[in-house]
Amino acid sequence: MKKLLITGISGFVGGHVVRYLFSQDAGYEIHGISRSRPAWDFFLESPQDNKNVRFHKADLMDIPKIKRLIVEIQPDYILHLAAQSSVAESWNTPVDSFLNNTNIFLNILDTVRLNDFSARILSIGSSEIYGVVGEKDLPLTEERHVDPANPYAVARVAQEYLARIYAQGYGLDICSTRSFNHCGPGQSDRFVVSSIVKQFVLIAQGRQEPEVRMGNGSIVRDFLDVRDVVPAYRLLLEKGKRGEVYNICSGQGYAIKEIVSMLSEIYGIRVQILETRSQIRPMDNPRIVGSYQKIQHELGWQPGIKFEKSLRSMYEYWDKKLSEKSSGD
Amino acid sequence: MKKLLITGISGFVGGHVVRYLFSQDAGYEIHGISRSRPAWDFFLESPQDNKNVRFHKADLMDIPKIKRLIVEIQPDYILHLAAQSSVAESWNTPVDSFLNNTNIFLNILDTVRLNDFSARILSIGSSEIYGVVGEKDLPLTEERHVDPANPYAVARVAQEYLARIYAQGYGLDICSTRSFNHCGPGQSDRFVVSSIVKQFVLIAQGRQEPEVRMGNGSIVRDFLDVRDVVPAYRLLLEKGKRGEVYNICSGQGYAIKEIVSMLSEIYGIRVQILETRSQIRPMDNPRIVGSYQKIQHELGWQPGIKFEKSLRSMYEYWDKKLSEKSSGD
Repeated sequence: MKKLLITGISGFVGGHVVRYLFSQDAGYEIHGISRSRPAWDFFLESPQDNKNVRFHKADLMDIPKIKRLIVEIQPDYILHLAAQSSVAESWNTPVDSFLNNTNIFLNILDTVRLNDFSARILSIGSSEIYGVVGEKDLPLTEERHVDPANPYAVARVAQEYLARIYAQGYGLDICSTRSFNHCGPGQSDRFVVSSIVKQFVLIAQGRQEPEVRMGNGSIVRDFLDVRDVVPAYRLLLEKGKRGEVYNICSGQGYAIKEIVSMLSEIYGIRVQILETRSQIRPMDNPRIVGSYQKIQHELGWQPGIKFEKSLRSMYEYWDKKLSEKSSGD
Repeated sequence: MKKLLITGISGFVGGHVVRYLFSQDAGYEIHGISRSRPAWDFFLESPQDNKNVRFHKADLMDIPKIKRLIVEIQPDYILHLAAQSSVAESWNTPVDSFLNNTNIFLNILDTVRLNDFSARILSIGSSEIYGVVGEKDLPLTEERHVDPANPYAVARVAQEYLARIYAQGYGLDICSTRSFNHCGPGQSDRFVVSSIVKQFVLIAQGRQEPEVRMGNGSIVRDFLDVRDVVPAYRLLLEKGKRGEVYNICSGQGYAIKEIVSMLSEIYGIRVQILETRSQIRPMDNPRIVGSYQKIQHELGWQPGIKFEKSLRSMYEYWDKKLSEKSSGD
């Protein structure tokens, strides 16, 4: 059985990857590295599945330990999900954001290089590397030059270049993604769509005034449901071209404020929008929408879940989660 | 008196910067951080000058100490020269190269940000960020997109983007260079021109067979004399535009093999060229030549020292240094 090592397995995407692989009988021996045990047990179809994931508790900044673990596991595949993936946090703690993103990845690559593995690596990157783009540049294709506009994005640019150099210069078998914004059930409310949906649930439950707080409501992002993201990751892990980079996106842009309108419409709730100053970043890309033509053309992937369905799933998720909480009060 | 802090002051460029500033009566209180005391005392016109530089012995990777030092010194200007600047070494030890270059710089910026200095920072970067370019792209201007092709170059790209983000996002007063290859008296023989000149001196002194070892002799680089580099750095430190980046180059390309022909001609020494495998890197940019139009247009700088003069100065340097050594044998 092929061994798959997932870094950052305890996160939102990690949970969905595991669930997807089990649901597809993908046949991997799954190893996961994370600081803490995952909180997504409920995602799995069967509690048995949880036992089939081998957790290795470790801080990814503990480089010697991570190196030992990788050498011990000898993975055939590495899915590098671990990241500090909040742009807002990267403005508050740029050094931590940079170290957590770039240095960890570099050390993983170097461990594979120095130990002469043939491990195939999928490096998860971000659409933030495109930076501030004009209307005429949309949708963004992989040919577009990078132009990072926040500390998080710089770390992602470094990661992508390092992946390419390790592929071309040292012959490692790596391919990279430029993943656009995600959404879906289980996402933390540190991310904008999840935060807004959660607030709607709180309002519906009568636990919040009919006001929705957000940063800049005018920015447009391309949100892809995590349940569309994970099949793309599997395809790229198994079949993506070495040294190449692929956009993973929905091809659709929504302004943050539009999400509020959609939720108001679906659930019949009228709300006020409050754009709070503290959540507005020093620089923001006004509009990001991607093209998924490359991965569609090469591997046949395309998004299948409509944004409205994503919002409904997230609403159900938060409704269940917050009801559990309040019943436990 | 304005305080100037120079990181990496003990290096080749550091020595020339200090000599230049004293020769110009630039009027700075100069502070230098480095791991070891400089070996370039002989550069200074007067031994007295050496006492006017305040050395702070510290490893730049010792982040807490560097932060304390910066807060203590409260510099008005920071010239960030410190770097692991060998492309070849970056292929051998990519992790160290990356950490030494990017993390140190990031921590300096963050110290300035968090302590609300108005320090003006000049970030020294590299032409390596341009990567593999075509003949039609030469000479390279600052508009050219970056495309790093070795681990060192990725660190330099990250550094430049971080400088821009700290300038635009946090309002720090930073400008950056893309410095092309340097040469000049005092340069270490880890760098190609100095290595070749040193070999010529050894051959002339009868201490080496008439064979010159090098890596890939066909690559073309733009070599600027360090004595032209340092006035450009002073101009940019004092007058460069915030958030901008400037090429520092000669505008002339020489193939490595041509340097051998020039030295053969000047000194009347015939040699064999040995291209050694170990010095050839996994990927190499065939040809890099820059344009200095931007700094010339904005600040009136242009190179003044012909390459032949640089070679002669380097020959004298090595001849003196190697004679001292042999007389001490």
